[in-house]
Amino acid sequence: MGNNLIVNFTPTGMIPTKEMTPHVPIIVPEIVDQVLEASELGITMVHLHARDSQTGVPTYKKEIYGEIIEGIRKYDPELVICVSLSGRNFSEFEKRSEPLFLEGALKPDMGSLTLSSLNFNATASTNSPEMIQKLAKTMLENGIIPELEAFDIGMINYAKYLAKKGLIKPPYYFNLILGNIACAQANLLNAGIMINDLPEKSLWSLAGIGNAQLKMNSIGIAIGGGVRVGIEDNIWYDTKRTKLASNNSLIKRIHTIAQANERKIMPASEFRALMNMAPGNGSYGLKR
Amino acid sequence: MGNNLIVNFTPTGMIPTKEMTPHVPIIVPEIVDQVLEASELGITMVHLHARDSQTGVPTYKKEIYGEIIEGIRKYDPELVICVSLSGRNFSEFEKRSEPLFLEGALKPDMGSLTLSSLNFNATASTNSPEMIQKLAKTMLENGIIPELEAFDIGMINYAKYLAKKGLIKPPYYFNLILGNIACAQANLLNAGIMINDLPEKSLWSLAGIGNAQLKMNSIGIAIGGGVRVGIEDNIWYDTKRTKLASNNSLIKRIHTIAQANERKIMPASEFRALMNMAPGNGSYGLKR
Repeated sequence: MGNNLIVNFTPTGMIPTKEMTPHVPIIVPEIVDQVLEASELGITMVHLHARDSQTGVPTYKKEIYGEIIEGIRKYDPELVICVSLSGRNFSEFEKRSEPLFLEGALKPDMGSLTLSSLNFNATASTNSPEMIQKLAKTMLENGIIPELEAFDIGMINYAKYLAKKGLIKPPYYFNLILGNIACAQANLLNAGIMINDLPEKSLWSLAGIGNAQLKMNSIGIAIGGGVRVGIEDNIWYDTKRTKLASNNSLIKRIHTIAQANERKIMPASEFRALMNMAPGNGSYGLKR
Repeated sequence: MGNNLIVNFTPTGMIPTKEMTPHVPIIVPEIVDQVLEASELGITMVHLHARDSQTGVPTYKKEIYGEIIEGIRKYDPELVICVSLSGRNFSEFEKRSEPLFLEGALKPDMGSLTLSSLNFNATASTNSPEMIQKLAKTMLENGIIPELEAFDIGMINYAKYLAKKGLIKPPYYFNLILGNIACAQANLLNAGIMINDLPEKSLWSLAGIGNAQLKMNSIGIAIGGGVRVGIEDNIWYDTKRTKLASNNSLIKRIHTIAQANERKIMPASEFRALMNMAPGNGSYGLKR
């Protein structure tokens, strides 16, 4: 991979609420504002979750994703946009895949693809082989690139299986998310084995849940990978949990560490070129 | 762990049918016969799955588990008996836990406890945190020892979490099952990291799915661990898949490799002592 640092910004997620932290963006204009602010600071891509504007509850509705994407692209048509296809709150394929059917200038560049079923702290997240393959196939057919999400080493093997079946195509992009309670832990051996197992032609970012975010991001920067960073993965700025993070503060810290490590933030245009994506000038997704 | 070899015999499982292999025991007397034959050859414990005698379909019914256990203990009251609490075919707690409520001479010594949700080849296996904790609690209350099943590295972390919550107590017994498509792969790095991550006071057996069974069993023997072996994990005897395995032939091969590696089969009585189990003289489960 190139030596520039992929910064994958995750501002919202499914879990944080305004009660937990006032800094989490929930409604469309909040999300758009924070993404554009982050983009001015310097990020490569954004991983979007949408929320219902009345209830704050996660939603799969493509109208809301469309509004967020429209708001971002009005000022930054280049930023790489990934929509969440998470099954944590909605299990039906029709719901999970809905944001993939946005078109034209609202079409997402990427969609998240969790590579197995797993347990989070309090809940099971079921992603059956059939569901994973249907989502991958739909993305392939629509020219949308999967953001491959691996929480444990075996999920990387499943990506290789999907590649063998022709359901995903190189180059690949992986989020390696460590520190979940029933998955790979945020240590060097677990991270190292996952990175080592990646298929050829893979770009990747390291992410950590909760306190592991800072540690995994720093390691990602040091070892030549990317980072996934934002309130989605940790609402706290410090590991002692005395200070709530703003998305802005999290990105600035990444920049500080990156600069000290002689790494520049990868511009979205470079990521687009590396991933064979359309250049972000009104047509989106995979370059045709 | 002691230097004697734990042989955890898995004759049946959920998947093999008579159409796939005539050697898989399905009805009660077949299972009892093959377990007793294996016990005469030399095994430490048995991991039982029950099938409906009419349809051959997996069942959770304690009556059928009771018949198998009665049949085994009539001739071998010492063999350590573990019942499957798998959620692959039945999702309700009441069904999954049913075999734990067998009593007296029919009470199982152990019950299987898969430590997360995961994907098998064609299906998701959902084991929510709540389900895992309820099964663990029920075993704790009934003096039944969990057979901790880990398919990937993060599941070992979840066992540590259960231990911290007091839901499982040392000493522990783990099956490390490698080679599942979306889980840890059957190689030395993945096996090594899992073994290295085990909590103190853990006994463990290495298992492999399909062709990985022989490899993982041999490594388990060489490195001082135990083995889980039987038709449940692989219906073939050879890796070229030209010859169907009998349970008998699989166990004999383990004995050959064990002997060449200067390892003796651990008698059930030794396993009982190491795990603080009742001695198998009419009272079963944890020593009170």
